[in-house]
Amino acid sequence: MSEINIGLVGAGTIGGGVVKILQKQGDFFRHKLGLPLRLARIADLNTKLFAGLPVGDAICSAGADDILADPTIQIVIELVGGTTFAKKLVLAALAAGKHVVTANKALLAEHGPEIFETAERNGVSVYFEASVGGGMPAIKTIREAMVANDIRSVRTIINGTCNYILTKMQNDTLPFEEALRQAQQAGFAEADPTLDVGGGDTGHKVAILASLLFGGYVTYNALPIEGITSISAEDIAYARELGYRIKLLGIIKADEGSSALDVRVHPAMLPVQHILASVSNEYNAVLLEGDAVGQILLYGKGAGEMPTASAVVSDLVDIGRNIVNKAPRRIPMDYYHHNRAITLKPLAAINSRYYLRFTVVDKPKVLALIAAVLGDNAISIASVVQREMHAQDRVPVIIITHPACEADLQHAIARIEGMDFITSKTQIIRIEE
Amino acid sequence: MSEINIGLVGAGTIGGGVVKILQKQGDFFRHKLGLPLRLARIADLNTKLFAGLPVGDAICSAGADDILADPTIQIVIELVGGTTFAKKLVLAALAAGKHVVTANKALLAEHGPEIFETAERNGVSVYFEASVGGGMPAIKTIREAMVANDIRSVRTIINGTCNYILTKMQNDTLPFEEALRQAQQAGFAEADPTLDVGGGDTGHKVAILASLLFGGYVTYNALPIEGITSISAEDIAYARELGYRIKLLGIIKADEGSSALDVRVHPAMLPVQHILASVSNEYNAVLLEGDAVGQILLYGKGAGEMPTASAVVSDLVDIGRNIVNKAPRRIPMDYYHHNRAITLKPLAAINSRYYLRFTVVDKPKVLALIAAVLGDNAISIASVVQREMHAQDRVPVIIITHPACEADLQHAIARIEGMDFITSKTQIIRIEE
Repeated sequence: MSEINIGLVGAGTIGGGVVKILQKQGDFFRHKLGLPLRLARIADLNTKLFAGLPVGDAICSAGADDILADPTIQIVIELVGGTTFAKKLVLAALAAGKHVVTANKALLAEHGPEIFETAERNGVSVYFEASVGGGMPAIKTIREAMVANDIRSVRTIINGTCNYILTKMQNDTLPFEEALRQAQQAGFAEADPTLDVGGGDTGHKVAILASLLFGGYVTYNALPIEGITSISAEDIAYARELGYRIKLLGIIKADEGSSALDVRVHPAMLPVQHILASVSNEYNAVLLEGDAVGQILLYGKGAGEMPTASAVVSDLVDIGRNIVNKAPRRIPMDYYHHNRAITLKPLAAINSRYYLRFTVVDKPKVLALIAAVLGDNAISIASVVQREMHAQDRVPVIIITHPACEADLQHAIARIEGMDFITSKTQIIRIEE
Repeated sequence: MSEINIGLVGAGTIGGGVVKILQKQGDFFRHKLGLPLRLARIADLNTKLFAGLPVGDAICSAGADDILADPTIQIVIELVGGTTFAKKLVLAALAAGKHVVTANKALLAEHGPEIFETAERNGVSVYFEASVGGGMPAIKTIREAMVANDIRSVRTIINGTCNYILTKMQNDTLPFEEALRQAQQAGFAEADPTLDVGGGDTGHKVAILASLLFGGYVTYNALPIEGITSISAEDIAYARELGYRIKLLGIIKADEGSSALDVRVHPAMLPVQHILASVSNEYNAVLLEGDAVGQILLYGKGAGEMPTASAVVSDLVDIGRNIVNKAPRRIPMDYYHHNRAITLKPLAAINSRYYLRFTVVDKPKVLALIAAVLGDNAISIASVVQREMHAQDRVPVIIITHPACEADLQHAIARIEGMDFITSKTQIIRIEE
């Protein structure tokens, strides 16, 4: 063996970054590995992309068939996105005995077991550092650096679009729609932002992390996921007044003494001094808690051309080291099995403190009625904000609760919303300490 | 091969943590590696320690000779500290063809080339994640996750003792001596705190990081190192007033267009919104900047029994994976060579903004005289704080400069300190943006 040949499928933003790094750091990798990491073939339907990249002597084509058919290609990089063609491509590459590097979170979250089992069967590996948190080494830290730990919880701000929007709403006192528009202008939100602001992208990443952490498949479609579209400027302002910040969190918690895993995605209020509260703009962070190491935070850019390409290339070097050392399966792909499905804790069973924003008609006894229903459901009140309103007859009543069971809370809210003084849907935001 | 045998030398705090993790996670590691990581022998001069630990069937002894002589031992963990016996032990273990895991930053910083060259010659490896930042995966992140990057700068708060003391001084308005006393009571400072508060421990860690990053030996003894003992409650208070926090920083910067590396340790003022300014108490952080990935921050506990043991055991698993896969030198130890000494940039050549606290006799024209000398030396003033003092005739004059050359600054200060209105040594703190 005189070189490690790589086939890249997808020469868009991230693929372009990968081509640039392989060109720039080629000598360094050759020194480290003892032989070159050679970009042998590149495929992209948009063949105009090749002209703008330092593709060297790589053979460029519109289709990926040549890459799959070339027996000298040992690693395939999948950067096409989506879950249809990408799935076929990845499975075919693995079946052909090629290692795969992918940044495709949707693919792994929705089809993980099939992919990892195919890799195992064929004695090859799937590396996916870039699928969660871009350039932050979340996968490597969990799988290698924290291997001595039972990881008890993960809390993560892992969608740059949502974090940028929420930061804008807070700093510039903007409504959601205007903050989204500015995020789109700044290149931090897609034209169709649904997967980001709806929480689905965070859900994909959290499903991957939970599967990795707990050695079984956490089904993306079963996760409770709430996005940020219902967060109002009013909520942001009250959060600030009460000493909190609102962030979209991905949460994974393993309860002591329970086999069910608490995995969820929703906006959460964090106390302002919480380390995650200071993660702003497009930055991401992953807060991991291990039984030995305590808390570790990783912070960085979770998306974008070069950060994501940096993660893809670190995977290439890892696989390259394995190939050179004839240890192609140094880290087995044996987590993530169909037959080890994880039981998810129902959202109704969680305990949390809550921020509740009721919108009521300003008339006597409203607060007493709300408090009574909460009390009947074993929910005690930590603080209340209600102010005189002069301009309109609809008044916000803000209540922060002590820890309560979600089922009790939902039951109480349903009862309160049946009362005639409620004029709009009640806002419920969980508080994370 | 049916097991990987480990010899542990040093069963104190961290060694005890390692024993506990190997016992607790034994089944998990056996599953991951396909064979057990077996603690075969433990040595400690204090043989009373063994009784309190889950040593299993490990053979315990006062001396380490049996570990070195046992041909079945494949990995030696050095946790004795110091640089005399530890150096002999590590070199002997490597010469005997055993891999070494160590948490000993002083040893690597002061004798790195000899150790890594011995490892290379004998085809074995030295793993040292625990030597820098305890449980934070700084070494792994630099060496593996950021392999696609030219790392341009590292700024790190890497000594928990100093950070605890500075946090106490700031939050509780304490003088240095009292904050040190409280740190000692809380177990965050040694009885002899010299190596911590003098900056030497930070220097050891920075020397290791710089050597690792730039593929040559950065000589610890050549580093400019200043500790925190001269930081006064007054400096802390002015820093806060001016929107800064004072932290002990380890700094590594590679200038574009210069082969000299800027490596130093000193207290620095950080703007309050800087991500490192929010790292408080005993926590550590490493802020890495790569050309592809941008900024990555690692944050966690840099010391203590279980965090450090977690890092030691992650190294054991890494080496175990290499042994199982017959790839004992998967990541070569070929950085850190005698023959690639790094040129250090002289402190006099750096550019920085400065906080200057002059102590002067309150008489006319003092500020004009100071400003004139600064101006003569190409140092321009960004802001000044001077207040009326009623209780005494010695007055502090605080000046924040625009960026200036350190040589010019030192020259100006020497001239100003020769003037008769100066009553005490001038405090100089560099500002890091």
